[in-house]
Amino acid sequence: MKSFIDVSPDSHFPIQNLPYGVFSTPDNATHRIGVAIGDLILDLSVISHLFCGPVLSSQQNVFKQATLNAIMSLGCAAWKEARATLQGLLTADNPCLRDDQGLRAKAFVQQNTATMHLPADIGDYTDFYSSIDHATNVGTMFRGKENALMPNWKYLPVGYHGRASSVVVSGTPVRRPNGQTRPKDEEPPTYGPCRLMDFELEMAYFVGPGNTMGEPILAKNAHEHIFGCALMNDWSARDIQKWEYIPLGPFGAKNLGTSIGAWVVTMEALMPFTVDNYAQDPVPFSYLQHNDKYTFDVKLEVGIRADGSDHVGTVCRSNFRYMYWTMKQQLAHHTVTGCNMRPGDLLASGTISGPEEESFGSMLELSWRGSKTVDIGNGATRKFLQDGDEVVVTGYCQGEGYKVGFGNCTGKILPAHSVQ
Amino acid sequence: MKSFIDVSPDSHFPIQNLPYGVFSTPDNATHRIGVAIGDLILDLSVISHLFCGPVLSSQQNVFKQATLNAIMSLGCAAWKEARATLQGLLTADNPCLRDDQGLRAKAFVQQNTATMHLPADIGDYTDFYSSIDHATNVGTMFRGKENALMPNWKYLPVGYHGRASSVVVSGTPVRRPNGQTRPKDEEPPTYGPCRLMDFELEMAYFVGPGNTMGEPILAKNAHEHIFGCALMNDWSARDIQKWEYIPLGPFGAKNLGTSIGAWVVTMEALMPFTVDNYAQDPVPFSYLQHNDKYTFDVKLEVGIRADGSDHVGTVCRSNFRYMYWTMKQQLAHHTVTGCNMRPGDLLASGTISGPEEESFGSMLELSWRGSKTVDIGNGATRKFLQDGDEVVVTGYCQGEGYKVGFGNCTGKILPAHSVQ
Repeated sequence: MKSFIDVSPDSHFPIQNLPYGVFSTPDNATHRIGVAIGDLILDLSVISHLFCGPVLSSQQNVFKQATLNAIMSLGCAAWKEARATLQGLLTADNPCLRDDQGLRAKAFVQQNTATMHLPADIGDYTDFYSSIDHATNVGTMFRGKENALMPNWKYLPVGYHGRASSVVVSGTPVRRPNGQTRPKDEEPPTYGPCRLMDFELEMAYFVGPGNTMGEPILAKNAHEHIFGCALMNDWSARDIQKWEYIPLGPFGAKNLGTSIGAWVVTMEALMPFTVDNYAQDPVPFSYLQHNDKYTFDVKLEVGIRADGSDHVGTVCRSNFRYMYWTMKQQLAHHTVTGCNMRPGDLLASGTISGPEEESFGSMLELSWRGSKTVDIGNGATRKFLQDGDEVVVTGYCQGEGYKVGFGNCTGKILPAHSVQ
Repeated sequence: MKSFIDVSPDSHFPIQNLPYGVFSTPDNATHRIGVAIGDLILDLSVISHLFCGPVLSSQQNVFKQATLNAIMSLGCAAWKEARATLQGLLTADNPCLRDDQGLRAKAFVQQNTATMHLPADIGDYTDFYSSIDHATNVGTMFRGKENALMPNWKYLPVGYHGRASSVVVSGTPVRRPNGQTRPKDEEPPTYGPCRLMDFELEMAYFVGPGNTMGEPILAKNAHEHIFGCALMNDWSARDIQKWEYIPLGPFGAKNLGTSIGAWVVTMEALMPFTVDNYAQDPVPFSYLQHNDKYTFDVKLEVGIRADGSDHVGTVCRSNFRYMYWTMKQQLAHHTVTGCNMRPGDLLASGTISGPEEESFGSMLELSWRGSKTVDIGNGATRKFLQDGDEVVVTGYCQGEGYKVGFGNCTGKILPAHSVQ
C-alpha cells in the first residue's frame, strides 16, 4: 500500500501506521485531531464529512473534538472503519483527497509547525510492573538474587494507581523535585533536591469503551477495550521513592511528571507485529487467560542529550516483546475486582528491560544502583540524570520496507527549586 | 443566625452549614448544584442571578454547572462571598427570597424527592494513612507492636494514589469482588470471592484552585486550596489486599468502589470546630509546618444494617480530631515533588481510628483481624461484612444549639458474581 503523500522509508508514519494525535498550529490554537502521514498531519476536523461508513457516518462529530476520548469510546468496529477510511483516502490511486487541491491545502499541516497536546483527557492512569527482567533486576538490588521476585509476581500483573494530572505530552520539561530522602539508614531523613533522578522506558496504552463498575473484563475480551499505544517515560526520583514507598507504594517519587509520546498507534496498526507471548509458569488463573498472541515486537531506544550538546547518546536498546504479562492480562486483572475503566484511561507496562545489560530500561539498572557509569557519548558519562539532560525515547516496528513508529517522547530536566 | 426555613435542632443542615451537593429530581433530570437547608435543597441554578458580590457577579455561570468543579476553581474569596450571599438570602429577616413565592416555589426542592450525584468530576483521588491509631493497629497486627509504625510514618503523611473512576456517591451498591487471595502462606493462591470484606471510615476533601506542575503548595498556604469535606467509606477487600500489595501498594482490593457522602461541607462552615493539632514529634520539615489549628472535632459513627433488618447497629464511634497529619500537611506533601492538583481532586484521610476500641474505623480493627465478633444488634454479630449488609457512615460537628453535619454515606454489599 502506498500513499500519494511522499513518505521516506525511514519515516515512522507511512500509510500502514496512521497514528492519532491532537495538535494545534500557530494560526489556529484550537486543539484538533489528526493522523500522522510522512512529515504531515492530516487534520481530521477538516475531513470529518468523509467518514461515511456504516458506523461513523452518524458519528462524524467525534473527529471534531479536542481529544480522542470520543473516538476511543466508540469501540473496535468504529476504529477499524476509521482506519479503512483513512487508508482509502490517503492511498495513491484514490483521487478524492489527492486531486482536491482546495481540501488538501486545508487538510494537511506540516508536523514541524504543529504543537502537539495530550491525546486524551486521562481519567485515571495505572502503571504496571510487568517486565520480568526489570522486576528481577530491582528485586536483586534491594533484596538479593534469591528473593528478587515477590511471591505474587508470577500470579498477577502487579500494578499501582498513578497520578493522571501529571501525565504530560512529549516535550514538556520536568522539574527535579525536592523531597524527603534518607541517605543513611541509621540517620534521620533529610529534605532537599532529588539526587537520583531517573527515567523509566515504558509503553502506555489507552482504554476504549471500558466497563461498568462491578463487571470485570476477561482477558479474552480485552482487545475490544484497547485503542492503541504510545511511548512513555515515567520519571522517577529513586532516593525519594526508597524512603516513601513502604507500605503503600510509590507516591511523590512518581507524581512529579510522566511523559507520553504525542502519537497513539492503533492496535490494528500493531497487529502485524505480534510475536509469541512469554511462556508463563505457573499457568495463570482463567480470568487472565487468552490464546492469541498479544506481545509486540516494538524496538525501543532511550538516549540522553546533555545540556548544550547536539549528540543524543543511546543508553538503552530494549523491546516491548520482553513483557511477561500482556496488555490483555493487565486490563483483566485491573478490572477483576470490579474497577471500572473509562475511555481515555491510560495503562502502562512498567519499565521495559530485557535480559541483556544494554536493554535495561532505567538508569537504576544501567548504572546498577550507581555502581558504574553509563557512556552518553562525547566523553560524558552518567549514573543518574543531571539538570539539563534531555531524555529521548523512541520506538518502531519494522515492516517490510516500512516502519510503524511512535515518533519520539522527550523531556528535559529543569533544576530543582531552592528549598524553602 | 436563623433561617426562614424551618430547621430542627437535630438537622445536619442549619443555616450555619449550607453544604453543597449535586442533585436531580424526577421532573428534571438535569444535574444541578444545591445547598442543603433543613429538609430542603436550595437549587442554585434557579437563584444564580442573586450572586451579586464583587467576585461572583461576573461568575454566576458557575452555579449553573452540573458539578462543583467550577466553584472549586474560583478560590477562597469566591467561596466566602457565596456563603455570605447564601446566608443572607436564607436568613429569617431577609424578604428577598422569603417573600418571593414564585421564586421560592422554583428554588426549593424536598431532599427526599431528589437524587444525589457525585459533587464533582474527580480528576484524581488520593488516600492518606494519617490516623496514628489506625496505622499502629494495622502495623501491630501485621508486624508486631515493636515495628507497628514504619520509619517514615512520623516524617511524612504516607499516602497512595487511589482510583478516581470508582468513587461513587452515597447509596450506590458495591459488589463483593472476586480476586486472588492466599489463605495459607505456604500454599499457592486461590481465585474466588473476597472473604474479608471491610469498610474504612474516612473523611474526604476536595481541592480548590490547585497548582501548576513543578510548583508545590506549602502547608501554610494550603487552606486556599481546600474547598470542603465529605464523608467517605473506602471499601476494602482485606484478603485480596494482603496478597497483592507488596511492593507497590493496594490496587484491586480498593478500586472496587469508594463511597463518598453527597454533601460537601465547606471549610468556612467547619472552621468554628477546630481543636488543637496532634502534637507531632519529630517536628516536621518546614514545608509541612503551619501554626494554626487545622484539626476538626467531627463526631463520626459507622453502623451496619443487616439485609432485611430495620436496625442500624452502631459499631464505631470515632472523631476526625484523631488525625496525626492535618489536611494542610497532606496537601503540602502531595505537591512537594511537583505534583499538580486540579479543582475537584479528592484527597482522603485514611481510616480514622481513635485510641479506644469502640473508635476503631474498620472491621479489621474492630474484630482484631477476625479474632472476635462485633455486635450489630438484634442478636447478630459480624467479623467482616456479609452480603446484603448496608454500611451507614454519619458525622457532625456540635455547635451551640445546632449541628453542622455531613448527612449519611451509605452503601450495600451485593453478592459476588459466580467465578468464570
